[in-house]
Amino acid sequence: MDQTSIEDPAYHAAVVDLLGVLAYGELTAFIRMAVDSDAAPTLALKSSLAGLANTEYAQYRLLVDHMAARGIDAEVAMGPFLVPFAAYHARTKPRGWVEGLVKAYVGDGIAKDFYREMSVFVDDDTREVMASALDDAGEAEFVVRVVRDTLKTDPTASGRLALWGRRLLGEALSQAQAVAVERDAMSALLVGGGVDLGEVGRMFTRLTDNHQARMARLGLSA
Amino acid sequence: MDQTSIEDPAYHAAVVDLLGVLAYGELTAFIRMAVDSDAAPTLALKSSLAGLANTEYAQYRLLVDHMAARGIDAEVAMGPFLVPFAAYHARTKPRGWVEGLVKAYVGDGIAKDFYREMSVFVDDDTREVMASALDDAGEAEFVVRVVRDTLKTDPTASGRLALWGRRLLGEALSQAQAVAVERDAMSALLVGGGVDLGEVGRMFTRLTDNHQARMARLGLSA
Repeated sequence: MDQTSIEDPAYHAAVVDLLGVLAYGELTAFIRMAVDSDAAPTLALKSSLAGLANTEYAQYRLLVDHMAARGIDAEVAMGPFLVPFAAYHARTKPRGWVEGLVKAYVGDGIAKDFYREMSVFVDDDTREVMASALDDAGEAEFVVRVVRDTLKTDPTASGRLALWGRRLLGEALSQAQAVAVERDAMSALLVGGGVDLGEVGRMFTRLTDNHQARMARLGLSA
Repeated sequence: MDQTSIEDPAYHAAVVDLLGVLAYGELTAFIRMAVDSDAAPTLALKSSLAGLANTEYAQYRLLVDHMAARGIDAEVAMGPFLVPFAAYHARTKPRGWVEGLVKAYVGDGIAKDFYREMSVFVDDDTREVMASALDDAGEAEFVVRVVRDTLKTDPTASGRLALWGRRLLGEALSQAQAVAVERDAMSALLVGGGVDLGEVGRMFTRLTDNHQARMARLGLSA
């Protein structure tokens, strides 16, 4: 994307939206994971989940600092996303520790895939900070082991958690849809980037494929 | 403290206890502050409290890494303190956001003062990592402003929060007392360090003086 379009007000608004939604998503994920770590059954798991929460916070900080350096008011940028995130979290309250872990793994996975898709349409500078904010260095992989152990010992877990994964995908897509309707600039980024409806469809196929792959890694049907 | 005493098993046990209680205290503080940040009334306060939580986590990591480097199993070291901390937090559940902030400021202040007092009796290496783990770089000072603003607008807050501060001090000392009875090695550090009862008394005077000073900074009577 060339310098002219960076200065384009519509493009600027879209980038502010993207950075805002990503930052607030990380802050919210930080809080959710920290709250879940409180409920962790062992000290080792408490510590692992606290570490994951901490990484989300560090990524949040990175985005806030990046916005400050670009003269973007982070609070204003995050503002429009308070309600959609609150709605998503209210509609996906984990019942118990393992559902919380699956949510951290699957819900965050969907969100990060979506941001990665969007990062194709932004300037190099923004793409770079987004990539850093999206790289969790495989820290969430401990979730795979915990969920697989749970499946071995609890015969009802498999069906319940598979259902839970579908619910998380559905709620995430439904909030993303609500945001897309509300935030013209961000949606225009797709369309303005020369993306046709067929490409949007393929993007959703990639998102659901990745979701399925993540569920399979956990040992769950999607 | 010379090298001989570092190799003394009783001294070693005391250091393991000290690092364990400090680390678990930081992990618990991280979780409590993150949970409180969830309830913060504004995005700015949510972000500030999340930052404070994050600092606690970084200090926790520092201690865990230090223990690993010294061949100390951090989980084992933290084990004895799960119950006292759970008891303290169960007995000091904040009713509302401002009580949570006062707890973060006052409760953490008391704990950190206590660890600083104990760090006088350990070897240089341990003292150094403890000092790093105890330095919050004044990050908690935003609490002063929030509490003082609350006192201006809510006429009942002053009495209620003063009472709350006294309760926090009482519960903290009562748990410290329970730990001291339970953990011989750590108590012996005081006595073995040539500390007489008069000095222990003076230490408690310093702790309560500092508590009073912190309450005064918040605009509250102790």
